[in-house]
Amino acid sequence: METAGKVIKCRAAIIWGDKQPFSIEDIEVAPPRAHEVRIKILASGICRSDDHAVNGTISNPAYPIILGHEAAGVVESVGEGVTNLKPGDKVIPLFVPQCGECRCCKSPKTNICVKTKLGNNTGLMEDNTSRFSCKGKDIYNFIGTSTFTEYTVVSDANVAKIDASAPPEKVCLIGCGFSTGYGSAVKVAKIEPGSTCVIFGLGGIGLSVVIGCKVAGATRIIGVDINPEKFAKAKELGVTDCINPQDNTKPIHEVLIELTGGGVDYAFECIGHINSMTSALLSTHYALGTCIIVGVAPKSSQISFDPMIMLFGRTLKGACFGGFKGKDCVPQLVSDYLAKKFDLDGLVTHTLPFEKINEGFELLRSGKSIRTVLLF
Amino acid sequence: METAGKVIKCRAAIIWGDKQPFSIEDIEVAPPRAHEVRIKILASGICRSDDHAVNGTISNPAYPIILGHEAAGVVESVGEGVTNLKPGDKVIPLFVPQCGECRCCKSPKTNICVKTKLGNNTGLMEDNTSRFSCKGKDIYNFIGTSTFTEYTVVSDANVAKIDASAPPEKVCLIGCGFSTGYGSAVKVAKIEPGSTCVIFGLGGIGLSVVIGCKVAGATRIIGVDINPEKFAKAKELGVTDCINPQDNTKPIHEVLIELTGGGVDYAFECIGHINSMTSALLSTHYALGTCIIVGVAPKSSQISFDPMIMLFGRTLKGACFGGFKGKDCVPQLVSDYLAKKFDLDGLVTHTLPFEKINEGFELLRSGKSIRTVLLF
Repeated sequence: METAGKVIKCRAAIIWGDKQPFSIEDIEVAPPRAHEVRIKILASGICRSDDHAVNGTISNPAYPIILGHEAAGVVESVGEGVTNLKPGDKVIPLFVPQCGECRCCKSPKTNICVKTKLGNNTGLMEDNTSRFSCKGKDIYNFIGTSTFTEYTVVSDANVAKIDASAPPEKVCLIGCGFSTGYGSAVKVAKIEPGSTCVIFGLGGIGLSVVIGCKVAGATRIIGVDINPEKFAKAKELGVTDCINPQDNTKPIHEVLIELTGGGVDYAFECIGHINSMTSALLSTHYALGTCIIVGVAPKSSQISFDPMIMLFGRTLKGACFGGFKGKDCVPQLVSDYLAKKFDLDGLVTHTLPFEKINEGFELLRSGKSIRTVLLF
Repeated sequence: METAGKVIKCRAAIIWGDKQPFSIEDIEVAPPRAHEVRIKILASGICRSDDHAVNGTISNPAYPIILGHEAAGVVESVGEGVTNLKPGDKVIPLFVPQCGECRCCKSPKTNICVKTKLGNNTGLMEDNTSRFSCKGKDIYNFIGTSTFTEYTVVSDANVAKIDASAPPEKVCLIGCGFSTGYGSAVKVAKIEPGSTCVIFGLGGIGLSVVIGCKVAGATRIIGVDINPEKFAKAKELGVTDCINPQDNTKPIHEVLIELTGGGVDYAFECIGHINSMTSALLSTHYALGTCIIVGVAPKSSQISFDPMIMLFGRTLKGACFGGFKGKDCVPQLVSDYLAKKFDLDGLVTHTLPFEKINEGFELLRSGKSIRTVLLF
């Protein structure tokens, strides 16, 4: 059936209000307008940031909303003026867009296009309307993506075309979790071969940092987590030393400074706790060390430290989506995956049919999954 | 008179105890031992860090002590094993040594040689003895330099040989204040042409940052100070906009974000106040901005901020001596000065004979001088 230009009826997981579960509903998805793309979603990972949105940990979204931002799919149709994508193209939606025109897109120093909706999610398209409706109500979108639906509409700044042969149930992770961790190591920290690194938090993001550290040639990769059940997988992916802070009476940064003879070259905080952020910073070498904050702290958090710990040359930096500009880097990351430059398959511990989305979130909250991927 | 190998009797300014004034005394300076150099001081600047040491703001030194660390002089004699310096060489003592052998010296990322005495000033030479004595008592040295004396002895890791034609009463500033500010801009921040910069604090260090910003090609250089008397000199050196936070009802970072259409590329804190450190950080562009902490905060200070302000890519970094490795960079800085790549003469507002050192410190404390240089 030819669907281009028509409203599509399909299923989506809607959150109707604060702290509600996902409800699978029949929705209508309007055709893409100018510079928009309608995508048939094939696979969507369940990321901690979706759960943060459910809980209001970061910011309270407008309801009703379709969450989801880590996916792979196929272009169903394109709106007027979309020249670089066509129906049938395999794509990854980008929650960090790349308009190519703004000050940030033109700078090699950042990937945060001014059109990024993180922190100011209006839930609407650029013309301040919605493409989703259900039971006569407009439904809001999520950070320019909304992938917990069989079809979504996104701005053409929020799409990267990828290799047609890429397996969607794996490369969907390149749409968020994998790239966020991996890029923090290879793109933001730019780890040199022979470096010593520590990763605080061995969840999906932390393990993706581990993969990046290994690809970059780090020779010592230390994993820190209070859950020792995470250590086996971490070692499998490249961690050389696992440390549980609860096994030590000394502060963890002192343990790390001793273990590494003066502190690590690179520390990555992948939890979002202010205490582990300062521990990560303090665990870096006093003159050479760089600490990258990858984890997202609850809103209105404050970190505190003596500024003099920076004086000899430490660097503290934050990063989002691994510093990758989506259109420039996501296609290459998919190619690198296909060329076996890295293996992210081990991060996908569970797959579920889309309609079992609430079960997938339970796996995330209980800590039983690294990544659950929903299949459509 | 041949002095090599002999004890030299000369004058030095000694601080005998906590919060005491400088006392000009006759002292004995022992000959340099292995890998040490005895230097006749020609000129020494009075730097805020010397005053911090007097006040115990940073750390309490051991008394009696000879302070001073920003100087130019001539090698009088060298100890055994010193091959790259000879009597008559014009030199600048280095409070950040460069041994050339340690992990830090071998890394391009830092200038903080492991032999640096900042933060752990023993006041003694490497063999745990002193070369200074007065009235039968050993006198401690200061961060490997001690330049408020007609003669000093330093490790050969703490000396840079400079062009013989350099005027000591000017280039002594390359031994600390000028390089600290200038290098923060050109070496640590690595400012690109066309950048927008803000400097908090328009004292000697801040003005040296201004000179660095201008040499690097920054097109907008904003100076922030609560003392409007500093604005004329700042503009003369390259500041394009002067702002007094007390003239504004809004927080200074909001003023700067508005003024620059989104935040500066580079912010430099040159005061050592925790509030201006967070203001400097917040005044940087949320995705592209870098904040360099140059000022030294009072001991046990804490800065606090929401870590999420880092998430989109901001960088916070500290720097000491402008990131310059002394032996590698100081000779070149002196040559650049002689070649008129920059002009630091305007920073020297007062010169005094050495014995008027207490008067020089009064000029510093009253804010009447940018730099007072003592002549020997």
